[in-house]
Amino acid sequence: MRRVYLDHAAGRPVDGRVLETMLPYFTQKYGNPSMVHTPGNEAREAIETARGRVAKLIGASKKEEIIFTSGATESNNLALKGVALRNRDRGNHIITSSIEHMSVINVCKDLAKQGFEVTYLPVDRYGVVDVAALEKELTEKTILVSIMYANGEIGTIEPIREISELVHDHGALLHVDAVAAAGQIPIDVEAEHIDLLSLSSNDIYGPRGVGALYIKTGTRIMPIIQGGGQERGLRSGTENLPGIVGMGKAAEIISAEMETESRRLAKLRDKMIRGILESVPVSFLNGHPTNRLPNNVNVRFSYIEGESLILSLDMEGVACSSGSACTSKTLEPSHVLLATGLKHEEAHGSLLFTLGRQNNEEDVDYVLGLLPGIVRRLRVMSPLTPKELIGDV
Amino acid sequence: MRRVYLDHAAGRPVDGRVLETMLPYFTQKYGNPSMVHTPGNEAREAIETARGRVAKLIGASKKEEIIFTSGATESNNLALKGVALRNRDRGNHIITSSIEHMSVINVCKDLAKQGFEVTYLPVDRYGVVDVAALEKELTEKTILVSIMYANGEIGTIEPIREISELVHDHGALLHVDAVAAAGQIPIDVEAEHIDLLSLSSNDIYGPRGVGALYIKTGTRIMPIIQGGGQERGLRSGTENLPGIVGMGKAAEIISAEMETESRRLAKLRDKMIRGILESVPVSFLNGHPTNRLPNNVNVRFSYIEGESLILSLDMEGVACSSGSACTSKTLEPSHVLLATGLKHEEAHGSLLFTLGRQNNEEDVDYVLGLLPGIVRRLRVMSPLTPKELIGDV
Repeated sequence: MRRVYLDHAAGRPVDGRVLETMLPYFTQKYGNPSMVHTPGNEAREAIETARGRVAKLIGASKKEEIIFTSGATESNNLALKGVALRNRDRGNHIITSSIEHMSVINVCKDLAKQGFEVTYLPVDRYGVVDVAALEKELTEKTILVSIMYANGEIGTIEPIREISELVHDHGALLHVDAVAAAGQIPIDVEAEHIDLLSLSSNDIYGPRGVGALYIKTGTRIMPIIQGGGQERGLRSGTENLPGIVGMGKAAEIISAEMETESRRLAKLRDKMIRGILESVPVSFLNGHPTNRLPNNVNVRFSYIEGESLILSLDMEGVACSSGSACTSKTLEPSHVLLATGLKHEEAHGSLLFTLGRQNNEEDVDYVLGLLPGIVRRLRVMSPLTPKELIGDV
Repeated sequence: MRRVYLDHAAGRPVDGRVLETMLPYFTQKYGNPSMVHTPGNEAREAIETARGRVAKLIGASKKEEIIFTSGATESNNLALKGVALRNRDRGNHIITSSIEHMSVINVCKDLAKQGFEVTYLPVDRYGVVDVAALEKELTEKTILVSIMYANGEIGTIEPIREISELVHDHGALLHVDAVAAAGQIPIDVEAEHIDLLSLSSNDIYGPRGVGALYIKTGTRIMPIIQGGGQERGLRSGTENLPGIVGMGKAAEIISAEMETESRRLAKLRDKMIRGILESVPVSFLNGHPTNRLPNNVNVRFSYIEGESLILSLDMEGVACSSGSACTSKTLEPSHVLLATGLKHEEAHGSLLFTLGRQNNEEDVDYVLGLLPGIVRRLRVMSPLTPKELIGDV
């Protein structure tokens, strides 16, 4: 059976060249970078090289502005808690959007329990954050605004430059969760005046268990994990040497290949979206029709459940999902889709395909060949399907 | 030049068999364990296998009691903050010792700022925690006691069973930092009535960037990293799949080989200690003479600085350290050595060798051949050295 992996938002293979670069750091170069001896020095240099490569991916001119973490969830936790708790003397208001990742939303809920006021900005039907609402909500008490660069679930790219201008006009700090965007579309933290930016290693084909947080020089922030004072005191714990080296290499590779690869993916994406909407009746695109991540296909089918679709496709070797990995275990529909105005049953009938490097046109053809039949079969079984539709297909 | 790595407390190579087990999870089996499709199921199973192996290493009968983290520093942060903040309604007193790792001590300092009272128990000249003092300090307000199983810097093994009995008699919870002990000496969380226990993957020859926290069923604790609710809501973030698989394999291997290997290392350790004390005048052993970790050699030499010794040995291919990686960057002497009653200059003149799997008798002979000459050369240059000593050597 053909195996077609279309769940790159949830997990990606590590690039072979990245793994190659990491390997010596497992078994041969295992010094602790805090140590003054030769193995320690070698480890320290390897980490600094990786730091420079990650900085370059997002246009940071000072590599010291990159802090390595254990992943994007920790980066988001550090950015939000670290800035909120450190800047409490300046205000207690935080603004975010209703379509952020759970590691932003759940941290905001926690901060609300600790006395912070949190505003969740609405989005339009395409998932674009309401910039006019942001302008209205910004007050002198606002210390931090956290908006994602692009949403990994519906693919919509947010107007970060506009947001950034408003935020800085009001003297607040801007945190951007760039996990879904980095490596797919160009990011320039300096030109876009971003104060903090979260990155995941695996989302750029690096290893899991590593991430980074860009922190603009001068940003007031405190650590959430304390100990030996690694990463300039902002993230204690012995550095994940092979992981960091891997993330650095992945950043270097994707910086060089992003333009070509994103163009290739966007073509596959458009073929897939067009193919699905044309071949499956009563099917719709979720997210922005044009301003979207090159690898993102999120579609919904009336009268059936995404879960059944996923399992049916899985039996044919196709791996895809109904939304974020972080909410897929619960039976709740995606908070992102609900925020765009979909009803519960519409959100439940959605399917997310995220393309990646190893996907090709045959993969897309394979799915396009399967999907209409599967949707029809499930609709025939569903008591919700109108009779005329089943007759029609 | 011969390369002799004797800094295993700071960093270890990954076991070749462990790396072998991890490799498929980088490039072939990269599903997200939260997902319901086949790659997701495979990932979930791999994580549960690893969880069972880690549980077995420390005698936990329920694998669900193991939570994977990004490393021992995070485990210690989660154990202390998670328990303290969750049990605030029961009391605000925490007891720890003066020789804990910085990820315990600095977290305690942070909790003190948040209104907790922290007692730091003294240790005797060998680094053994004062159990009588513990008994005196325990009150009905004490919610948590955190004592390490063994100290990685001076090798001293703590009387955990005695401590455990006292702590539970007073209705408090016991957290044990077992990073230095695990895989070197047997641990049984159930027989020893331990409520929480921190582990590091790299310290058992697994990959860096992974750790675990044993949390006994029923222990009241809250997360410090929030998001998608992975690890039963106690540690959000996409699981570090290859890392967790690697830690599991490392736990399995070390469970099987610990007894033989620890006996072998203890012999090398004793040869090295005896050799140094016999061949270098005015040299002393730090830590407990008998009740110590099998891989730990910590010695001090009057009149000279550990830093110069490390650099001199490094030039001969020997990697060792002056103490914990987490404090070695600062010029402060080791807080552990100071707690055992050493003066600043005595602590500064200390050298830590930590043996590991690839070390053999020739390595020990090599160091024993070098050390007396290096110490003598440095003493000749030191203004502190008494004339008669230099004449003597």
